[in-house]
Amino acid sequence: MTDLRITVVERAQLAMMLEVCAFPKPGNVDRCHDYPDTFLEHFLASAILARPALEEAQTGKGRIGEIIKHAVRDTNSHGGGNTHFGAFILLIPLVYGKDIPGALAAIARTDSSDAIAFYKAFAMTSVRMPSSDELDVHDPHALTVIRQRDMTLMDIMQHSAANDMVAREWVNGFALTRRGADLLKELGPGRGSIVRMFLTLLATELDTFVIKKHGVAVAQETLLAARDVLDGRRSVENLDEEYIRRGINPGSIADIVIASIYIALGEGWSWEF
Amino acid sequence: MTDLRITVVERAQLAMMLEVCAFPKPGNVDRCHDYPDTFLEHFLASAILARPALEEAQTGKGRIGEIIKHAVRDTNSHGGGNTHFGAFILLIPLVYGKDIPGALAAIARTDSSDAIAFYKAFAMTSVRMPSSDELDVHDPHALTVIRQRDMTLMDIMQHSAANDMVAREWVNGFALTRRGADLLKELGPGRGSIVRMFLTLLATELDTFVIKKHGVAVAQETLLAARDVLDGRRSVENLDEEYIRRGINPGSIADIVIASIYIALGEGWSWEF
Repeated sequence: MTDLRITVVERAQLAMMLEVCAFPKPGNVDRCHDYPDTFLEHFLASAILARPALEEAQTGKGRIGEIIKHAVRDTNSHGGGNTHFGAFILLIPLVYGKDIPGALAAIARTDSSDAIAFYKAFAMTSVRMPSSDELDVHDPHALTVIRQRDMTLMDIMQHSAANDMVAREWVNGFALTRRGADLLKELGPGRGSIVRMFLTLLATELDTFVIKKHGVAVAQETLLAARDVLDGRRSVENLDEEYIRRGINPGSIADIVIASIYIALGEGWSWEF
Repeated sequence: MTDLRITVVERAQLAMMLEVCAFPKPGNVDRCHDYPDTFLEHFLASAILARPALEEAQTGKGRIGEIIKHAVRDTNSHGGGNTHFGAFILLIPLVYGKDIPGALAAIARTDSSDAIAFYKAFAMTSVRMPSSDELDVHDPHALTVIRQRDMTLMDIMQHSAANDMVAREWVNGFALTRRGADLLKELGPGRGSIVRMFLTLLATELDTFVIKKHGVAVAQETLLAARDVLDGRRSVENLDEEYIRRGINPGSIADIVIASIYIALGEGWSWEF
């Protein structure tokens, strides 16, 4: 799939599709597992319905915050809840700027209008945030704080980076996205490399979505369990079963995996073999 | 998914996605099974990459044959072989005309330029045709015959209708497409209805793709086995395993199922429940 006829928009959609189909991914919706209210088909519908917002991003014009809001709005028409909010935070700048340097240039230009649009998008989702946060998305006061302090969307991401690894990508130059893409290229062609890359990130980084939902101890346990799988001490199927049962879904690393696939596809990595 | 914001293009893409994910479908690629060279991801990539051709169809302008050729060209960039050729023969007119009456009006206006473009599209695929046919797509002489007789694309479909149930839809007013959509609405909301509808068509119609690949006796066996499943005498999983092993994939009925989902979604049927 290194075909030159593939646009950056299609590359982003293929990345979303390939990530959710990859299996078995411990705890996440994949080809083998649904959650009661969120199915494989919800993620795939979201990948299809994101097209207009991704095309808006592809023009390299318009406001990043507003385009993220459009992506959330257009993919909210299914009943599967939040599917790709974190992925859009990464993909919209990447499609806007075409690659990581371009994305960094684009996010550096965000202003408070982007921050406000982003908070409105956030409010449309059911994404968790620590409720003690003065920028809590469910608190109408947050928009006042943003306006008073003239915070840009980059400021919001800096504020969130400590507790959110997706926001951290904006601040650290898409470091994990870059690492995931390099891993895919090292691991070689074929969709099987996606699962291996996912497990490698899971074995080295605490998933901040797991921390928000279950606490840091469970996230640490997740990291160690992924190491056991990579070292052959435990089967990935066994870990997957346990996490599905306990509702432990490393969703933030999944978002970064999508961005990594997008970058790797653009650099010649192929999911076919 | 009866949202008014969904365009006919997105509806067609969702129909392709929902059909291939539905499981278990005896013998076909689905959520549980790949074929050695054709994966679930190939079908989903094809659904994503068909967008420009479907958008061309949505304008209701241009030549049907040429648009089918574009759909095949744009989805040929993956290595999974033919995935949706039969589906495009149905979906392109349906998106062009929005519904079945509109599609019938559109295909009635095809001419020999559509027939020639269609044959060029056919030549890009590896779809089977009886080799004794004087209009065999692999025979360069076929284009001469089309020009000499000034055959329209509708004439080609009439010629093919005896041996190809997808072509037959053009001739019989999309009768099976209509029946599949009505079945979905009778069976009620939820993706599970797709499998039941698929089995119901399989239990009453000989799949012409199976006939071309394995002969009419195997197609008749397929029909009777589907009845056994519907009547509870055999499990669908058991039938699926046998067909995967024997390479019996009822691909033409799958194409019609996609068209039926497209129609049903437009008439308020929902895949969610």
